Amino acid sequence: MLMADLIAKKRDGGELSREEIYFMIDGYTRGDIPDYQMSAMCMAILLKGMSDAETLDMTRAMVQSGETLDLSPIDGLKGDKHSTGGVGDKTSLILCPMVAACGLKIAKMSGRGLGHTGGTIDKLESFPGFVTGISEDEFFKNVNRIGIAIAGQTADLVPADKKLYALRDVTGTVPSIPLIVSSIMSKKLASGADVIVLDVKCGSGAFMKTEEDARRLAEGLTRIGRLAGKKCAAVITDMDQPLGWAVGNALEVKEAIEVLKGEKGGDLMELCLTLGSCMLTEAGVAETIEQARSMLLESISSGAALEKLSLMVSAQHGDGRDVYDTSRLPLAPVQYEAVAKTGGYVQRIEAEQVGLVSMHLGGGRATKDSGIDLSVGLVLHKKVGDKVEPGESLATIHASSLEKAEEAAELLRACFSFSGEPVERGSFIKAIVR
Amino acid sequence: MLMADLIAKKRDGGELSREEIYFMIDGYTRGDIPDYQMSAMCMAILLKGMSDAETLDMTRAMVQSGETLDLSPIDGLKGDKHSTGGVGDKTSLILCPMVAACGLKIAKMSGRGLGHTGGTIDKLESFPGFVTGISEDEFFKNVNRIGIAIAGQTADLVPADKKLYALRDVTGTVPSIPLIVSSIMSKKLASGADVIVLDVKCGSGAFMKTEEDARRLAEGLTRIGRLAGKKCAAVITDMDQPLGWAVGNALEVKEAIEVLKGEKGGDLMELCLTLGSCMLTEAGVAETIEQARSMLLESISSGAALEKLSLMVSAQHGDGRDVYDTSRLPLAPVQYEAVAKTGGYVQRIEAEQVGLVSMHLGGGRATKDSGIDLSVGLVLHKKVGDKVEPGESLATIHASSLEKAEEAAELLRACFSFSGEPVERGSFIKAIVR
Repeated sequence: MLMADLIAKKRDGGELSREEIYFMIDGYTRGDIPDYQMSAMCMAILLKGMSDAETLDMTRAMVQSGETLDLSPIDGLKGDKHSTGGVGDKTSLILCPMVAACGLKIAKMSGRGLGHTGGTIDKLESFPGFVTGISEDEFFKNVNRIGIAIAGQTADLVPADKKLYALRDVTGTVPSIPLIVSSIMSKKLASGADVIVLDVKCGSGAFMKTEEDARRLAEGLTRIGRLAGKKCAAVITDMDQPLGWAVGNALEVKEAIEVLKGEKGGDLMELCLTLGSCMLTEAGVAETIEQARSMLLESISSGAALEKLSLMVSAQHGDGRDVYDTSRLPLAPVQYEAVAKTGGYVQRIEAEQVGLVSMHLGGGRATKDSGIDLSVGLVLHKKVGDKVEPGESLATIHASSLEKAEEAAELLRACFSFSGEPVERGSFIKAIVR
Repeated sequence: MLMADLIAKKRDGGELSREEIYFMIDGYTRGDIPDYQMSAMCMAILLKGMSDAETLDMTRAMVQSGETLDLSPIDGLKGDKHSTGGVGDKTSLILCPMVAACGLKIAKMSGRGLGHTGGTIDKLESFPGFVTGISEDEFFKNVNRIGIAIAGQTADLVPADKKLYALRDVTGTVPSIPLIVSSIMSKKLASGADVIVLDVKCGSGAFMKTEEDARRLAEGLTRIGRLAGKKCAAVITDMDQPLGWAVGNALEVKEAIEVLKGEKGGDLMELCLTLGSCMLTEAGVAETIEQARSMLLESISSGAALEKLSLMVSAQHGDGRDVYDTSRLPLAPVQYEAVAKTGGYVQRIEAEQVGLVSMHLGGGRATKDSGIDLSVGLVLHKKVGDKVEPGESLATIHASSLEKAEEAAELLRACFSFSGEPVERGSFIKAIVR
């Protein structure tokens, strides 16, 4: 079998066989197939597409390129959640304790974040003493005992995806639905959960610009998930502004705690209820979406969800009391109000740009080995549709110095656009695909 | 400017600017742009196309990647010819002396052949003493004095094409009209001629399988040639069998001499008259195609064309008398008749396969540094449409040993397919594009 022949087959619109796809992914992972052939293949796939059968084979071939997690030492069904990426997205910190409180096991292994803020495990390290690098044995024991654990990933999951994504990133071959589906789903399959919900963002700040594209991706993800034997659902959400109010590691943990306490609602709560009810019904924990929503709301009002988070913090060597009193979490030395210079109704808040403000403050990682300041970031006071008077604060900047804070305030103001007329927002949850 | 952005632009069907195309070709030639980006770009170009403006810019950027030949020391218009490649194609050996005899200058620098037989300069070395490596000064003087010189290429013409073709060859990105056009025309432009005729082969044995594809290529080549300020025409010819009768270096030289003597006609003569009349009319040497054909036929009947070849052989340190008496040309020790085992009407002769027979005998080069046996090859006795009785000879094999000859005869028989019914051939010249 020659890779050049496979490229020509796909270029001419042909369907690759299972054997051909495994040959390609195995050969590429081992280094037998060079980057310049794989990038031509990715472009051919992007422009000619792949069938579900091809996408499933590609996903499975990628899973087989590395280690996989066997969650069978944990009793019962295990749930997992994936987001296509958003600024201010602390959903996992809220959703996981909520569904765990309702009885679905959460055994989540995550990588560290690269970008505007850290990933979920970076954020959890805001709890003093919290250990993300627990052993597999401890991880399993914790989930069996308290129903939840979120740990750093130690196994070498899907090396093919790491290599392929780096190549796609520099060859214009990222925006291909089958390639995105196989990238996301290979990691989810390798992580071993039984129930997978996916948060697919759409809008100008998201990777999928239109709702139609987001729907195609959501349908692709759930279809391949089900073909691989998983229970699967996807939620399409609007990303015309950051999610919630806080952007920055410890600031997002504090906001998650406020939501779990029932002190804050809005889009963020609605997203957690929607994703959570999909998880609970797919898992058979609830019969209907309505029942699932009641259970989830009850987990908030009863304090059970917050308690799950507290138990997890304690089980992972932190102090569980920190979720009830957040004064021990990192706090930046400088708080600075970014005041509006003009007024009007907020029309847009460029989420990507807000992410870069957090990055500028030191809250994100530019490279894998960069350090990260857990205390810095910003808390928005105005969101799309709100009326702003000149001089009002748009956000509180949390910074390591006044100079940094002033720079960040300037950058943040540029993220806002205003309208003279009242701005009506479309619905935040665009669709549920299951 | 980032190559990844240019790939995305082409992927989405955009048109690359001149500046972007030069950035890409310069960067790739220098090694700043890696193969894996260039191959993704080539696939995007193959599937999304390029405008004439883009193709012209790409052709010119490739010309500028290396040295160019300045033929201005030669008075008058200079003609050149290119073929997309055929088995038994000794056209240049006949056409060049013919048009030179009619008054159009031929100053041709050729590379050595890689494949079934050698290139034109390998074939010319069949004349004992013939020197292809003459100096530029001698080259110019010869053309000014006798109107013709064919020499080996010393300048580093179009290094971008060498690098890019090697990449396209292994990434499924060869069959793109704009990429083929820029590859061929960059070499023709760098070679400095004013009048360019192109022989575009079509058929199952050729690179362009259908007449429609061949026409698209021929139109692309002539359009870009004219946009670059050249006089240009293309002829589309059928390649359902080898061209002429002989395949092999010295054997092809002998056949060319027979044609120049007026002893042989057929497809080969028709092709030379067609290409030649295009060259002479484009150059303004003749007013009409009819007049040009008369001039070319007269160059044969008067012996003027053969004399041009003789003058060139003498001028390049061979013995001009060898064109009148070919007994001093290389002759293989073994001549062996490949007799037909079955009979019928010849339906097809797989040209590519016949080329491999010549290669097997030692008449071609497998790698750049391979030696080449100028004496070996084969001379067909039967062509498409001919009736063959079992036991009749299909061809005379010229080999270095009886064993090689027997093997070659076996391989050659497999190149023929027969029909019980008389076979009618379509026209050999499919179209003239100008």
